[in-house]
Amino acid sequence: MQHALAYAAQHRSRFEAELFELLKIPSVSTNPAYSPQVKQAAEWVARQLAGIGVQTEIIPTSRHPIVYGEWLGAGENTRTVLIYGHYDVQPADRSDGWDTDPFEPVVRDGVVYARGATDDKGQFYAHLKAVESILKTEGTLPVNVKFLIEGEEESGGESLAAYIREHGRRLAADVCIISDGSMPSVDTPTIVYSVRGIVGFEIVVHGPATDLHSGMFGGTVHNPIQALAEIIARLHNDDGSVNVPGFYDDVQPLTEEERRLIASGCGYTFEQWQAKTGAPAEWGEQGYTINERIGARPTLEINGIAGGYAGQGLKNVIPARAVAKGSARLVANQDPARIYELIKAQIERLAPPTVRVEVHFLASGLPARVDVQHPMMQAAVNAYRRGWGHEPVFKREGGSLPVVADLTNHVGMPVLMVGYGLDTDGIHGPNEHYDLNLFHKGIETSIHFLYEVSQL
Amino acid sequence: MQHALAYAAQHRSRFEAELFELLKIPSVSTNPAYSPQVKQAAEWVARQLAGIGVQTEIIPTSRHPIVYGEWLGAGENTRTVLIYGHYDVQPADRSDGWDTDPFEPVVRDGVVYARGATDDKGQFYAHLKAVESILKTEGTLPVNVKFLIEGEEESGGESLAAYIREHGRRLAADVCIISDGSMPSVDTPTIVYSVRGIVGFEIVVHGPATDLHSGMFGGTVHNPIQALAEIIARLHNDDGSVNVPGFYDDVQPLTEEERRLIASGCGYTFEQWQAKTGAPAEWGEQGYTINERIGARPTLEINGIAGGYAGQGLKNVIPARAVAKGSARLVANQDPARIYELIKAQIERLAPPTVRVEVHFLASGLPARVDVQHPMMQAAVNAYRRGWGHEPVFKREGGSLPVVADLTNHVGMPVLMVGYGLDTDGIHGPNEHYDLNLFHKGIETSIHFLYEVSQL
Repeated sequence: MQHALAYAAQHRSRFEAELFELLKIPSVSTNPAYSPQVKQAAEWVARQLAGIGVQTEIIPTSRHPIVYGEWLGAGENTRTVLIYGHYDVQPADRSDGWDTDPFEPVVRDGVVYARGATDDKGQFYAHLKAVESILKTEGTLPVNVKFLIEGEEESGGESLAAYIREHGRRLAADVCIISDGSMPSVDTPTIVYSVRGIVGFEIVVHGPATDLHSGMFGGTVHNPIQALAEIIARLHNDDGSVNVPGFYDDVQPLTEEERRLIASGCGYTFEQWQAKTGAPAEWGEQGYTINERIGARPTLEINGIAGGYAGQGLKNVIPARAVAKGSARLVANQDPARIYELIKAQIERLAPPTVRVEVHFLASGLPARVDVQHPMMQAAVNAYRRGWGHEPVFKREGGSLPVVADLTNHVGMPVLMVGYGLDTDGIHGPNEHYDLNLFHKGIETSIHFLYEVSQL
Repeated sequence: MQHALAYAAQHRSRFEAELFELLKIPSVSTNPAYSPQVKQAAEWVARQLAGIGVQTEIIPTSRHPIVYGEWLGAGENTRTVLIYGHYDVQPADRSDGWDTDPFEPVVRDGVVYARGATDDKGQFYAHLKAVESILKTEGTLPVNVKFLIEGEEESGGESLAAYIREHGRRLAADVCIISDGSMPSVDTPTIVYSVRGIVGFEIVVHGPATDLHSGMFGGTVHNPIQALAEIIARLHNDDGSVNVPGFYDDVQPLTEEERRLIASGCGYTFEQWQAKTGAPAEWGEQGYTINERIGARPTLEINGIAGGYAGQGLKNVIPARAVAKGSARLVANQDPARIYELIKAQIERLAPPTVRVEVHFLASGLPARVDVQHPMMQAAVNAYRRGWGHEPVFKREGGSLPVVADLTNHVGMPVLMVGYGLDTDGIHGPNEHYDLNLFHKGIETSIHFLYEVSQL
């Protein structure tokens, strides 16, 4: 193992240069216009895996390919680790507020700025470099390793979900490890034991058959922007709770013990939350703390809205339609399919007869929770302690990783979420970045983890 | 006059080809990126005026130039006609739903499709060709003529308003004629005796300091899209009236006589309104008919909204800000500056403390009303009867032409609005078009008008 660590230290520059190559590929999976670049990223990852001696294949799907690799040379009596990651990224456009081109990585003070730097290219690639470091120095690995690197994590992940349901046995392992998360500071590595589910939806409000002049027809048609605003405004109650009948039906009430765990965990203090969000004031469901609302309560957010003309100046138009996209985050026991139907029914109830409203399903993922007492958890704790240099804390995550639920339900293994990024990395927003020191610490932690698992 | 009409008939193809040249110039005044093209259009118009023997100058302003021309050869004892028009256009993008490039005119079945075809390039150019037809055949005009062709009608028109206030005397005339309107059908030419004022505003809702991940921070910050929706939803009452305290204070109640005039005028039947809007149902202020709401009642519309990610797929973001643009249409006696302050105050009252809300002034124009008994009105009626071939009707217009109020107040002359377009021409929306027959009928009507005025 010392050889592997030395190898990793020796090849830092090359490892970084390779990561930058990957960051240059705009593998935006949400927008079909970028499909060629998504494919290009898949091929790049496959070449890297094959290059270090992993048997690799690119699995085509109806949308974006899955890269699968396996090295099973440790033999049948040895543990197997499944490493999951995703090579696709969120959309990013310089005009969203980026200081530099999101697909032209720039390093400032040891931090690389690029879309996908931490979510998830920098994090999954650390595992790949850990495997390389062991294989190149020892000629073998202490455990069998499988890689599952998908290209739809940012856009629903239906293809991987379908693949897991159909070919789950092939992915079988003793543990799955995922580095697609973050920690509040470098000395507080975090193991996530719960993720929220998600269900995304789109609201399309149709009004007049075509855009109308607001002077000539204003005051006689229900403006689709206004009708959409009226619907959105009613999706929450005055107390910040979600106004969708049945929305909370399957949510387990928080026990006093769990509230204490959340309060004493690595959640935000109010000041931290304030510093991270910059919001003028706190908002949300009354009766719950910020950290409870983030990790343990379901929420509903509108993620985008568009209608009419919002460019420079004023255009005197009543648009033919207005669109909003939204998503609900769900907690354990909530079923995304059922919640989608509840949301759809409520929007249709709220829709006035003066417009025509369509609701479309966009994406979903199950919530999931892992037993913190599982022996594999101890391997992860030890790896952080030895590779990262700090004791980890446990956390409920506000975000969603549908693959966690899919792997838990359909393959049947503990899924450990060990993030190598920081909460402040700006994922999904402008100027996403990743401290390259964390990239290298991630590689070392991953080397330790593989050896820890082999000793169980 | 017969020579002029014959000349106009003879040069139809050339007149159309010239109009198409002007339509090819994307003189979008709302967007500073198009300033060079706006200037190009001004220069094109100036060249045309000079080319037919009108003394022409381009008047620079702090934004877009004004084209002014005069032919005063009829002498001091003869009437003077001021012809107003605008060479700028609304924004247009193929992706808004245009079947063809909005700045590449296409003729189908005698109808030209292009942004500005009817609003207002095709209409003001008809007057220019009428003057050419008389001058080229008679060597003189029966009246003095002044041209005032501006470039900011679609974006506030502040420069022209300032010019009128400062140089009103230069524009003095016995009558101003404006063709920047429409009629319900070709056999119902319409003289507008009242236009609504307008005041435009922008609402910017600031939430978190940067875009946030909706899974990591959802339910703890007030989503700016949601806060904006809540504000917009509250700007109208359930009965369709505008929920801005003081908004209706200065509105004169409609008399029974005026209601009868509106009911018997050239307004829409419900079936016509339905056919023109394609809206699922009627909407608006209770207690008033469709035509009353369009012409005689103030209204408030949201013209555009944007926030977050509304492209393909779903982006799990809480945006840092959301923006809406809106405008109120005002009737006689309402002061745009006062109404803006009322709207701003109400938005600020509705703004929750969990976000920071800014309201910006965008544009304004006074409402105006002309005496239908004025002798110049008879000249316009006769011109329609003889040149267009149909008896005109009188109408209150829902749209706004601030220049009407400015010329009425600061120059002091009757301003006649004699449209040469159709209500169905699709102005401000996609596939704006103009029947070229109306262009030629407009030229003939304008020739008749100049002779009618000379006989008063």
